[in-house]
Amino acid sequence: MDINRLKKQMDIADQINLFDTTLRDGEQAPGIALTPSEKIKIAEKLDKLGVNTIEIGFPIVSEGEKETARKLSKCGLNAELCGLSRALKKDVDAVLDSNLNYIHTFIGTSPIHRDYKLGMSKEEIIEKTVKTIEYAKDHGLTVEFSAEDATRTELDYLLEVYKAAEEAKVDVINIPDTVGILVPITTKELIRQLKPNINVPLSVHFHNDFGLAVANSVIAIEEGVKQAHLTVNGIGERGGNASLEEFIMTLKIAYGIDLDVDTTKLYNLSDFVSKITGFNLSPNKPIVGKNAFAHEAGIHVQGILKNSSTYEPIPPELVGQSRKIALGKHTGVNALKAKISEFNLDLTENEFYSVYKQIKELGDKGKILTDADVKSIAITEISTAQEEAIKLLGLTVVSGESVSATATVKLLIDDKIKETSEIGVGPIDAAFNAIKSLVQEKININLEAYHLDAITGGTDALAEVFAITSDTNKNKATGRATNDDVIMASVLAVINSINKIILIKKNIK
Amino acid sequence: MDINRLKKQMDIADQINLFDTTLRDGEQAPGIALTPSEKIKIAEKLDKLGVNTIEIGFPIVSEGEKETARKLSKCGLNAELCGLSRALKKDVDAVLDSNLNYIHTFIGTSPIHRDYKLGMSKEEIIEKTVKTIEYAKDHGLTVEFSAEDATRTELDYLLEVYKAAEEAKVDVINIPDTVGILVPITTKELIRQLKPNINVPLSVHFHNDFGLAVANSVIAIEEGVKQAHLTVNGIGERGGNASLEEFIMTLKIAYGIDLDVDTTKLYNLSDFVSKITGFNLSPNKPIVGKNAFAHEAGIHVQGILKNSSTYEPIPPELVGQSRKIALGKHTGVNALKAKISEFNLDLTENEFYSVYKQIKELGDKGKILTDADVKSIAITEISTAQEEAIKLLGLTVVSGESVSATATVKLLIDDKIKETSEIGVGPIDAAFNAIKSLVQEKININLEAYHLDAITGGTDALAEVFAITSDTNKNKATGRATNDDVIMASVLAVINSINKIILIKKNIK
Repeated sequence: MDINRLKKQMDIADQINLFDTTLRDGEQAPGIALTPSEKIKIAEKLDKLGVNTIEIGFPIVSEGEKETARKLSKCGLNAELCGLSRALKKDVDAVLDSNLNYIHTFIGTSPIHRDYKLGMSKEEIIEKTVKTIEYAKDHGLTVEFSAEDATRTELDYLLEVYKAAEEAKVDVINIPDTVGILVPITTKELIRQLKPNINVPLSVHFHNDFGLAVANSVIAIEEGVKQAHLTVNGIGERGGNASLEEFIMTLKIAYGIDLDVDTTKLYNLSDFVSKITGFNLSPNKPIVGKNAFAHEAGIHVQGILKNSSTYEPIPPELVGQSRKIALGKHTGVNALKAKISEFNLDLTENEFYSVYKQIKELGDKGKILTDADVKSIAITEISTAQEEAIKLLGLTVVSGESVSATATVKLLIDDKIKETSEIGVGPIDAAFNAIKSLVQEKININLEAYHLDAITGGTDALAEVFAITSDTNKNKATGRATNDDVIMASVLAVINSINKIILIKKNIK
Repeated sequence: MDINRLKKQMDIADQINLFDTTLRDGEQAPGIALTPSEKIKIAEKLDKLGVNTIEIGFPIVSEGEKETARKLSKCGLNAELCGLSRALKKDVDAVLDSNLNYIHTFIGTSPIHRDYKLGMSKEEIIEKTVKTIEYAKDHGLTVEFSAEDATRTELDYLLEVYKAAEEAKVDVINIPDTVGILVPITTKELIRQLKPNINVPLSVHFHNDFGLAVANSVIAIEEGVKQAHLTVNGIGERGGNASLEEFIMTLKIAYGIDLDVDTTKLYNLSDFVSKITGFNLSPNKPIVGKNAFAHEAGIHVQGILKNSSTYEPIPPELVGQSRKIALGKHTGVNALKAKISEFNLDLTENEFYSVYKQIKELGDKGKILTDADVKSIAITEISTAQEEAIKLLGLTVVSGESVSATATVKLLIDDKIKETSEIGVGPIDAAFNAIKSLVQEKININLEAYHLDAITGGTDALAEVFAITSDTNKNKATGRATNDDVIMASVLAVINSINKIILIKKNIK
């Protein structure tokens, strides 16, 4: 389908304005609260990406909000900084008091907001609107106005409100789909009803309750709307807002619209916001999810290896991501051969098919294998000395409130029994120190990573630990263990990892 | 916007078919591998929800896939069970061998698939298509055919392939947007080009690389497509597939289309798939995310309390969810008053404003408060005895390989020193048993939940534990603690939780 031919039916504005509201509507999501310094870091990243306007908060809410706004206004960002305000003089004053030049003021216009929330008549709402816009304009602010719950407001009344705002010299008129009820066809119809009657640039603010916020925003752009309100990762109340990264990439790639943004910064920004807000992304989040450019070795990977566009609509580098290829139950012979040769291992035909069979069986059991797993299966297969070099013979741990955690570990290392005790900040640390000291003669071990999976249930639930150790030659291996005692699980995982490194060392040519 | 008026411009089929491919295309996502029993459980839940067709796997891939299909075919589900197959005789045989009656067969048709993946001419592809369909029909299968990468195939050739399939008596023609490049307007255009020329029911299979899969699927339905391929939570390769729950709720609520499904089962199904696949949902996932019906107490909650539809497009019960109200920095006086009275606590004006101030301050620092947090702040405020009833005086833990984990705990309970030791499956369990036994005279404690957060870093990284305990009167409290020793963190969290229950008991009237 040639979008260029279809674009002739559209009325796309010469310049699209990206209005980011991660710091205001995004932050309004239950479970998110950003500190002033976090807000500043996110704003700086948004500015470097190239968004045009950043809604930084709701100044009337607290002194903290005002202070953050004041600090941000001194950061020298290129983007306009905007503050939210109800249609009340004191809210406008709070925006002015925050050293901002741009105000986004709103009032509910739908019957449900008029009757249940505001208890105001249609006329009173228009009066408040006009007064607030005039007051803000008189104080030199750029003014954007939203009729809250616009999409559930009677169309003739909505137009009346917007015309009153226009006459009060508002700069931008925003259409919020506050409850996220629009679908593409109603979006198109709404814009077609409003736009010919309004001579001020239009903006949309769409919520994602049905998962349609990005689609609806893009449809609005097709119909001549100049600006969209967006949030990083689509965070926001309930189902969230239209996602900044999806909106940008859709316009850029699917529509070929040139937005002046550095898309290679999208992944880093998304990751940062995800970590700071604690709003984790699903692996399959478009553009920025950890799977967005991941392929499981199988029929598809064959295609990807031959030509990367076979199964990728966007080169991952364009959004700051990279391609990932994983092995699992769908893995074919060719993909596995490519993997094994990457590891620089020589397998006989028999050894190869034994490894292949193990991977398929593990796949059928629901296991997903990392590169390290596959390497270790392959190495175990070709290793003549398959027995473990190091075995745990004994472990005693003492720890408590007023004693240093102490671990006594007894290991069998190459058929010799060795024993020592060490202290640590906790019992697991003490045990690791003891193991490290016992194996030192044979191999110098560093702990690269230690991960104890979250345990939920009772205090007797299973603990799953993985540990990555490395030796001085940068050989690395992942060890895993599961046990109902967190200390035992940790010790077994570390020993498992060291045994794998010893095998790797033996087998590397 | 009245959708009923707009529906007159649409060509919606009398009955929409829900084709779920969670178990096939969903499972193809890197990181997901389902065991046979997991597949069966998910299929049963899909069937109870009311989907029409369940694609259960790709039988040729492994013996495990075939065996699962055979088992499923004996489960007596109402839904059709479908198996995937390339356009190859051996793949069709694998589907037959799996006791399935419905086959979904595919072959790549776009230039990139023809040249890079298949190395086949246009004619060869049509020949394979026809042969495979005829072979499958001859063996009594219902046949659905996909031209893989249809959306990047030359339109005239795509139509040629589909017409050949139609002549070979295919039952359903599916249009896969394999790389997820469609947008609503190109979707509409594509269907308008194809549908008048094809006399077989059409189906769409849309990927979500730009976040538009649900929107595009809904547009296809507007244009007369009878079936959509969907996955629970939108899981699938890269950005995933069109999400089952968003598609269903959009059609049902936004379009008023009557689908014969029990939507109240959606949340449970989504939660189950999320847990089994390990693909966590973002809190703001529409319909099924934990925030989809959550509201942070503030301006909005006022509206919700007065009339629930103020900020909710769907009643949460309709999808098996429930409404959640959280407190944080945006919380107003009224919302907090409502909360406090829910807890059945009497606060003086001064006490109330002190609690309110603490909540705002914590909000400004980035803290989100649960009900339990707020309750505990309020109780601490009114409590005359603010000191902790139980204090840890000493803890010694011994554990290891050949000894039972043993904990000796010394507590100060109401100014009396008590000490005991207990064993457990691990040191944390032993310590909990000792605490429980020490406090028994004062309060009978059960551990309701224990959660040790994942620890990443070194073996000396901080561990964060929260524990929920309850007493026999169902008073519950969450205790938290952070320590670089997992055992200490666990013990302190449990004691913290017990102290809170004791405070609650004192203050309940």
